[in-house]
Amino acid sequence: MADTQIHVTVWNENIHDREDPKTQAVYPDGIHGTIAAALNHLLGNVVVTRTATLERPEHGLTEEVLAGTDVLLWWGHVGHKQVSDDVVDRVQRRVLDGMGLIVLHSAHESRPFTRLMGTSCSLRWREADDQELVWLVNPTHPIAAGVPPVIVLPRQEMYGEYFDIPRPDDLVFISSFSGGEVFRSGCTFTRGLGRIFYFSPGHETYPIYHDANVQRVLANAVCWAKNVARPPYSTATSAKAPQGWFEQA
Amino acid sequence: MADTQIHVTVWNENIHDREDPKTQAVYPDGIHGTIAAALNHLLGNVVVTRTATLERPEHGLTEEVLAGTDVLLWWGHVGHKQVSDDVVDRVQRRVLDGMGLIVLHSAHESRPFTRLMGTSCSLRWREADDQELVWLVNPTHPIAAGVPPVIVLPRQEMYGEYFDIPRPDDLVFISSFSGGEVFRSGCTFTRGLGRIFYFSPGHETYPIYHDANVQRVLANAVCWAKNVARPPYSTATSAKAPQGWFEQA
Amino acid sequence: MADTQIHVTVWNENIHDREDPKTQAVYPDGIHGTIAAALNHLLGNVVVTRTATLERPEHGLTEEVLAGTDVLLWWGHVGHKQVSDDVVDRVQRRVLDGMGLIVLHSAHESRPFTRLMGTSCSLRWREADDQELVWLVNPTHPIAAGVPPVIVLPRQEMYGEYFDIPRPDDLVFISSFSGGEVFRSGCTFTRGLGRIFYFSPGHETYPIYHDANVQRVLANAVCWAKNVARPPYSTATSAKAPQGWFEQA
Amino acid sequence: MADTQIHVTVWNENIHDREDPKTQAVYPDGIHGTIAAALNHLLGNVVVTRTATLERPEHGLTEEVLAGTDVLLWWGHVGHKQVSDDVVDRVQRRVLDGMGLIVLHSAHESRPFTRLMGTSCSLRWREADDQELVWLVNPTHPIAAGVPPVIVLPRQEMYGEYFDIPRPDDLVFISSFSGGEVFRSGCTFTRGLGRIFYFSPGHETYPIYHDANVQRVLANAVCWAKNVARPPYSTATSAKAPQGWFEQA
Repeated sequence: MADTQIHVTVWNENIHDREDPKTQAVYPDGIHGTIAAALNHLLGNVVVTRTATLERPEHGLTEEVLAGTDVLLWWGHVGHKQVSDDVVDRVQRRVLDGMGLIVLHSAHESRPFTRLMGTSCSLRWREADDQELVWLVNPTHPIAAGVPPVIVLPRQEMYGEYFDIPRPDDLVFISSFSGGEVFRSGCTFTRGLGRIFYFSPGHETYPIYHDANVQRVLANAVCWAKNVARPPYSTATSAKAPQGWFEQA
Repeated sequence: MADTQIHVTVWNENIHDREDPKTQAVYPDGIHGTIAAALNHLLGNVVVTRTATLERPEHGLTEEVLAGTDVLLWWGHVGHKQVSDDVVDRVQRRVLDGMGLIVLHSAHESRPFTRLMGTSCSLRWREADDQELVWLVNPTHPIAAGVPPVIVLPRQEMYGEYFDIPRPDDLVFISSFSGGEVFRSGCTFTRGLGRIFYFSPGHETYPIYHDANVQRVLANAVCWAKNVARPPYSTATSAKAPQGWFEQA
Repeated sequence: MADTQIHVTVWNENIHDREDPKTQAVYPDGIHGTIAAALNHLLGNVVVTRTATLERPEHGLTEEVLAGTDVLLWWGHVGHKQVSDDVVDRVQRRVLDGMGLIVLHSAHESRPFTRLMGTSCSLRWREADDQELVWLVNPTHPIAAGVPPVIVLPRQEMYGEYFDIPRPDDLVFISSFSGGEVFRSGCTFTRGLGRIFYFSPGHETYPIYHDANVQRVLANAVCWAKNVARPPYSTATSAKAPQGWFEQA
Repeated sequence: MADTQIHVTVWNENIHDREDPKTQAVYPDGIHGTIAAALNHLLGNVVVTRTATLERPEHGLTEEVLAGTDVLLWWGHVGHKQVSDDVVDRVQRRVLDGMGLIVLHSAHESRPFTRLMGTSCSLRWREADDQELVWLVNPTHPIAAGVPPVIVLPRQEMYGEYFDIPRPDDLVFISSFSGGEVFRSGCTFTRGLGRIFYFSPGHETYPIYHDANVQRVLANAVCWAKNVARPPYSTATSAKAPQGWFEQA
């Protein structure tokens, strides 16, 4: 079964989780622990999950860990600048080589995501207990399976446009907030052989990651981001191609 | 198992197959029979295949047949105009309601495809034994799983740009021909809740559908086109939405 | 100057405008008259505008009129079914041949638009004095020139997702409504050699077309939709291409 | 007139041009000089051109030069690694802030381009006097104005797929080579407020930049890449947005 399982690593900068009682009250196992448990609950044997955090050696993302990771989830907020160049380089290389990446909420400004996008990934924001409505605008996308037309999140941080990202491959969700803003809250990208999903619903003190529909989206995204079609070649460097090289292929 | 199987109907206008000895020499079971056998061979119990042809009542595509079809493959060439308005309407409605559609070679000008695209779907063509090279330009797409970087088809009809289609969702294959032309030969589209794949390699007298890589592409496309995320609602008509309708959702 | 001017035809089914005092109070010159005047005001000599309406012979859209139209704006609501097959065919052909088309508000279900999209173009709606906020999500698009980050429309009909359209080429605006819904309210498409812009803000009794920002968007759209790059060939039919045909090109 | 002119800087690493007699024979004024002259010839007063090269202080791309540049063309080949971090950062920031960027041939692996793409931008290549045919697949794009259906380049370096780039906004050209390869040779991207065009035809010893059609493409691209819709705000950083901030907008 090993071959068909999805090896998932949930990464968390783990700062609020260790320092902020409000986060601890909502996520006593840490945000990473909550998400890993949800994936295990929804996907069972389909996934093998582990977690990794900023304070570990190499942030818990050694070459070995990444080589054994099919899909990496990334939570970051106040510690983006503490992530080392080496780990950013390594994550980028693994995504280009076929690892899936799911970027969560405030990780819009994380170093791996901005590196892969090439833009600032800036946005407008407000913490004022807005209601967020997450509208499904791509109902045939695999990430949408079993998801209702709208996910209602009674209290949430507002993230609003303009969101400075490249054009997504697929726009899956658009959110509105009770203050009136809109946000492209579920976006897919491909970089090299890697599939990327940015999903903005989530927060360190609002209980968003306990919402059943949000968990369903993340579970679907994990399945989608595992690269089933990964070809048996690298795209890391340009290669000389003699006349007719493909005849022998 | 019924629920997870993919119910496939391979439709053929079946004119060359009945009238042209050259087609009969290459496809003794008809183009539809060859393709259905290939899908059965590659996908086994995953699919339940049947075939339908133009000369049957309602072209073999009754409401019942279409309602029981997850993915429809469509071959047409000289008989496009013989397809009735009723069947074109019915196929369009079923695609919008979630049926997958795989459009083969000269079906670029079939009535269901031009209806769903809104354009002429015209192209340049030449029958002169060109070599076609089918290049994979989207290696992470599910349709590309197990497909080499280039499929070599020694003799084939040339289809060249400009190909008058709307922008594809995903461009999966680009072909070159020994005469120098290029063609966007593998394109995906979404219309309503239906997934569409146009794949130009194929012909009524060249043995393209016996090529193992072409068969692999078609089998992958069948799996991809089955709509796993089909939502439990219709998009056929606009609906009045009272204030707060989604709160009860 | 004739060559560089943009010849614009503003088409209106002109039913509310003739029959409904509430529409007449807001648009005493008709919706078409209001829009034509706004384009003249904003674009001056750049445009030559005329109007056409449903009740005229051939709905005012003869071959001659369409041949002399660079960009057609289309307003329809309750009279979609009264538009003749001939005129729908003619408009589609002209768009494929390079005429721009701007589709206004309730024309989402007009026959030319659904014909060109291939989908139902259905949506959710509500007339309940929602506030609409029109957010710019593509600030480098020519249609966005001089448009603020958000256009505030104090009272408007709600149009909500899921909007059953093919994937737009460019998503320029996303609206939110005070009831919480979102809508892809400014979308571009290409069909054949024609450029299409769908813009949902607008209504027959709310004074949306008097809003300066809405008028600016329509003026920008007219300039964008005129096909500057129209090639000197038709894409209406497939053409045989002998070996090396392009060497003489 | 100053306001409407396009300020263009043609940048060249200027290594072959200074060291290789074969390049000097084809481009006696340097590649940058040839391109600047072509733009002046085709666009006249519409443009104000200057050139800059690697060996100058700050590679000739000071803050002042970039601040006064609407569109930057970039040629690089063997000197990519000599471009300093500071200049790469500065070019990226200016693109995100609205400067257009046209990336030429072997600059597919230049530092500004890979930085903005987030991928390796690797490809297959061969120097063997292939004939390149550059096919127009997006005939309504402004970059295509006045360009024939196919540009014939009798001898050229082969660049082939898989080209490791993110999905382009618009695919304008696809090339074939006499060896059989295909390449997405004209691609547009948006990053932040900046418009980017990658165009692969070009070489340091083949006289590609003397070809009239290639020059026409570059002139069109310069006009297209100047950001006419640049909004009066920055996207460099996320900003707090108090409730109702847009009401005062």
